[in-house]
This record gives sequence, C-alpha cells and structure tokens, in this order.
Amino acid sequence: MPTPHDLCPVTWDGDAVRYLDQRRLPHDVRHERARSVEEIEAAIKTLAVRGAPAIGVFGAYGVALLRDLIADDEAFRAAAQRVREARPTAVNLAWAVDRVLAASNMLAEAKEIHREQIAMDEAMADAGLDLIPKNARILTHCNTGPIATAGGGTALGVIVAAQRAGKKPHVFVDETRPLLQGARLTYFELQQAGIDATLQVDGAAAIAMQRQHIDLVIVGADRIARNGDTANKIGTYGLAVLAAHHGIPFYVAAPRSTFDFAMRSGDEIHIEERAPEEVTAFGGTPVAPTGAAVYNPAFDVTPGHLVTAFITEYGVVKPPYAETIAALELRPRFSALI
Amino acid sequence: MPTPHDLCPVTWDGDAVRYLDQRRLPHDVRHERARSVEEIEAAIKTLAVRGAPAIGVFGAYGVALLRDLIADDEAFRAAAQRVREARPTAVNLAWAVDRVLAASNMLAEAKEIHREQIAMDEAMADAGLDLIPKNARILTHCNTGPIATAGGGTALGVIVAAQRAGKKPHVFVDETRPLLQGARLTYFELQQAGIDATLQVDGAAAIAMQRQHIDLVIVGADRIARNGDTANKIGTYGLAVLAAHHGIPFYVAAPRSTFDFAMRSGDEIHIEERAPEEVTAFGGTPVAPTGAAVYNPAFDVTPGHLVTAFITEYGVVKPPYAETIAALELRPRFSALI
Repeated sequence: MPTPHDLCPVTWDGDAVRYLDQRRLPHDVRHERARSVEEIEAAIKTLAVRGAPAIGVFGAYGVALLRDLIADDEAFRAAAQRVREARPTAVNLAWAVDRVLAASNMLAEAKEIHREQIAMDEAMADAGLDLIPKNARILTHCNTGPIATAGGGTALGVIVAAQRAGKKPHVFVDETRPLLQGARLTYFELQQAGIDATLQVDGAAAIAMQRQHIDLVIVGADRIARNGDTANKIGTYGLAVLAAHHGIPFYVAAPRSTFDFAMRSGDEIHIEERAPEEVTAFGGTPVAPTGAAVYNPAFDVTPGHLVTAFITEYGVVKPPYAETIAALELRPRFSALI
Repeated sequence: MPTPHDLCPVTWDGDAVRYLDQRRLPHDVRHERARSVEEIEAAIKTLAVRGAPAIGVFGAYGVALLRDLIADDEAFRAAAQRVREARPTAVNLAWAVDRVLAASNMLAEAKEIHREQIAMDEAMADAGLDLIPKNARILTHCNTGPIATAGGGTALGVIVAAQRAGKKPHVFVDETRPLLQGARLTYFELQQAGIDATLQVDGAAAIAMQRQHIDLVIVGADRIARNGDTANKIGTYGLAVLAAHHGIPFYVAAPRSTFDFAMRSGDEIHIEERAPEEVTAFGGTPVAPTGAAVYNPAFDVTPGHLVTAFITEYGVVKPPYAETIAALELRPRFSALI
C-alpha cells in the first residue's frame, strides 16, 4: 500500500519535478519525473497532473526548473509561455507561472506558492471542522482531495480534518459520471486516509439521503459568483436540490481565489460542454448507439440560496451572501496572515 | 439499419421461440432461436431476454414449444417448472407460465398473452397521449420500450404514440447507471423510431430541467403501492424531487398489473441491493479501488405525492390516489375489454 506521502501529486526533486500520474489511479500509484519543457507540458495536457491548484504548483516548479536548464533568456521565456498555456482554463496555472516569472528567486517563489497552498487548505479544513458532527454521515461528489490541490484538499480536506479530530466520519461517494473522479480518486484518497467510505452511482444520492441518514453534503467549487451561485462538477446542482428537499445542510468548501467578485450571479457563468465520447464510450468501448447526440455539460450552477454556507480559508461564510461575500473580498491577502 | 420489426424481442417461429439478444445491443442487432428447455432457460438467465413483460411472453411461448417437444407429461411439467423459475423476481414469468399450463391449447394461450400485452401497451399509449404537448421536451430514465415489453412499451410507448400523432417530441435520455439501459437500449429504440433524442449522464438531469426547457418527465415502474408510492430504477426518486422543484409534471406509465393493491405504502417495498461489481467495474475493467464498499440499490421509492399522474391501460389515474387507485383495483379484467 502506498503511504500518504506517496499521494503528493507534485514535489520538487532537485533536478526534476516529480508528479503522481493520476491517469493510472487507483490501481497503479506511479510517480514520474518531468525534466524538460516537453515533459512538463505533456504532464499537464494529458491530465497526468490535474486539479487546478495542483496544476498551479506543478507549473510553478516547472518554470523554476526551466530557469535552471535554459540559460538563454529568450528561449527560457518561450518555454515558460508553453507551460503557462498548457491548460488555458486552469486559472491557477497562469497565475502561478506569472508569479514565479516575476520573482528574483524562482525556486523559492515556487516553494512559497506550494507552502501557501498547504496552509490555505489547512485553514479551510480548520474552519469547516465545527460543521461536522461526531460520526457524521457525509455525501460528496467529484474529487476535492490532496491530489487535486497539492495541499490537503478542499471539501475532502475538511473530512480528513474531522477524521484526525476523532469524529469518525462515514463518507458516501458519488461515482461522478462521466469521468468517475469519485470512484477513481475520491474513494481512493478516503481509503488511504483510513476513512470509512461507501461508493454509489450518482442516481443513488436521493435514496441515500432518504434511507441512509446523511447528515450533510460537502462539495468543492470551480467558480462562485457574488450572490453565492456556484459552478461545480455536473451533478452538484441536483444534489443541492435533493439536500434542501431532505432538510440536509449543503456546504461548499473553496478558497477565496474561487470567488469571482466581478460576477454578480451564476447567469454569467459559461457552461463548458465537453466531448460526447465521455458519455458514449467507456474506456474506449462504445455504450451508446453510433452517432448518438449528447448533452455533456462539464459543470452546473447551484443557486446561492441552496448553499447553507461556504467554507473558506478565512472562515465560514454564511448568508446573506450579498453582504458576506462582499466582506470576503475585502479581507487581507492570505499570505500576509500566515 | 434494422427495421422496427427486427426489434421484436420475442416472436413465435414455428419450431422455436425467436428472441432478440439484448446483451448485444445497440451495436449488434441479432436474433437467436431457442429450441430446447436449456436454450429457453439460458436466454432468460443470461438476460438475453429482459424486461418483465417480455420475459412473460417469452416464457409463455417457451412452455408452448416444450409441450410440442416433450411427449412425456411428467418430463414436460419438470421442464416448464425450470422455465418458470429461471428468473424468480419476474412476476410476469410465473404468471404467464401458469396461465399457459392451465390452457387446453397452450400455443393459442401464449399468443393470446402476447396479443393482450400489445393491446395493453397501446391502450396505455392512447391514455397518455393528451398529456404530451406538441414539440414536448421530455426527460426519461431507464428502458421502458418495445424490447422490454414485447408490445409498444410503457413510458416509451406514450412517447412513440406522440411521435406518430405528429407531436414531434424531443427526448432527453438519462444513461441510467449502473447498467446503462438508457444509453444502450432507450436511445437505440428512440433512434429506430425516428424520434429526436439527446443522451446525458444521470447527474445532468437537474441542469437539463433548469436550462433545457424540459416540459415533463415520464418513467415506468416496477411496483406501485395503494398510496401511489412507486418503486422504479435507481435514480427515479431523485428525478421526481427535481421535477417538483422545477414545477415540471412527473408521470409514471404502468399497467394495472404493476400496482400492488395489497401494499399500503412504499415503506413495505423491499429494496434489492445488487452486486458491487456493477458499480466498481465497467465492461470488466475496474474503475474503483479494490475492495471498495458499495451501496447499489437496484430501485428507489418515489413518494406518491411527487407523482403528477399514473398512465394506465384504463386511462390516466390522478390524485387523490387513496381513492383513484382503489377504484383502479375494481375495474374489470382488461382482456374482457378488448
């Protein structure tokens, strides 16, 4: 069995950036070493490294490594740009690359980004701990753990903190179609953390709430508007409606960087639609008729009024969100607090 | 492309019972001929023939065939018993076998059972037609079409009737994990019927209701209690909650034989839990960690108050169900009406 340390998705390795090849999980826990711009770019593009915060940390170390490898300034800048653009939708990647490029000591800055990520996830987990009762039965969706953030995780970080505090949570994990991040990654992370977990198809969430005494739902987020409207993995909105119907609290764990303070409501969030093959084929085997038309939105938007509270590195943010999210925007930089 | 006739799941073929091997769908439309008790039993046990009504018709023809093949009365009775017990949970199978065994002309009785099934599905489709507006956008779950009933289908039969009436429905099909009956069978049947259809993962149902202007949900049922509580494929209950949240009608199409008049409420319905491998593996490929604990209920129970109406072969049954389902019990035998 791998030790928890082996689950670090990204680590600095002297003359390389070491990363966990997430495509092989859960059956093959294998680390690779990226030692060139081609290898760094490929690791991101092929989704061997995934999870926006983890990609950011990986890109930061990657640029620091390239600075060591490439003496010529112009060639280095071009290489850094390739890394920066390897995954255009990952906001953290461009942000981290720019921050490293602007630093006098690039490796020190990359390590600082990684340290801040770990501290931020810890602060989020601490903030959420009081919301988790002893022996809580928790439902979660998609993957929000250490391998996605290179820290302790967001929603899963709160659950792990509850386990460490002796609260013995039991987690019901939605498999999370179409890409099965729940089955492949979240269940695996819970198993590694020694947390009781039960896997279910997404369609079983309603009966789980009805008959399995679920105490709370906790998920991550991709983007949150000023009114609390939350974009997250497809299936999240349905869970929020079901939680409200059953009188179960619905929490979203996300750092302040996930809040888009320029966005007034979720109506402005563009819903990316992904390739039909994610739905019509499974591991290369077709499961639907040839030529099937597919609706495959990557995300959905949960209205803020269905979110009981947000768990952030600054503490728990409760309604009315028009006021409390505005206040969150005004808090000092997190790095100044640690 | 196969013609609609090729989709008959069961037909009498003189010296054999011809059946569609549903395991090979949608990519291979292949019929086989069962000519012995071993072949009849295997077709049922291996799920080559599935769908409770279709299994009933298949079993009826099967017993009629065995009567032709086996002269010895005792040997024939033993063979019929093997057919009767090939799928213990399929109520229709035992019922159809017993009915054929009690008849003086077994083949005529089997054909009568098949004719009644077709007439019943047609009556259900006619009853539901008025509930479908022109250009309706319909969401459905699991498989309820001709290949499941050996007639026109239940929920899907209503949709096909709407198409024939020129209403041009557009159907959003939940893939229906874990066994993907929506992707493999329902989408295929809609395609064959020339009906516009869109496939989606089960977790996309909520955003479809929110952003794709769904007009109604229609599903089948496995068992319905006197108060309208409805057991159906896992995921149905969640859909009913989502439909209520979005103000969308939620219809259940099912013949009277699906109503269990002895059952006062859904609390009495036993929820079968199926093998974990349905969730942890996909076409033989593992997708979850070894040893994962799984919650895999085959069905869930939708409370009657979330069902807008039932569509039966006797017409549309609306609330208050305590009265209207009691009245349904008292209606004359359907076969006496046709």
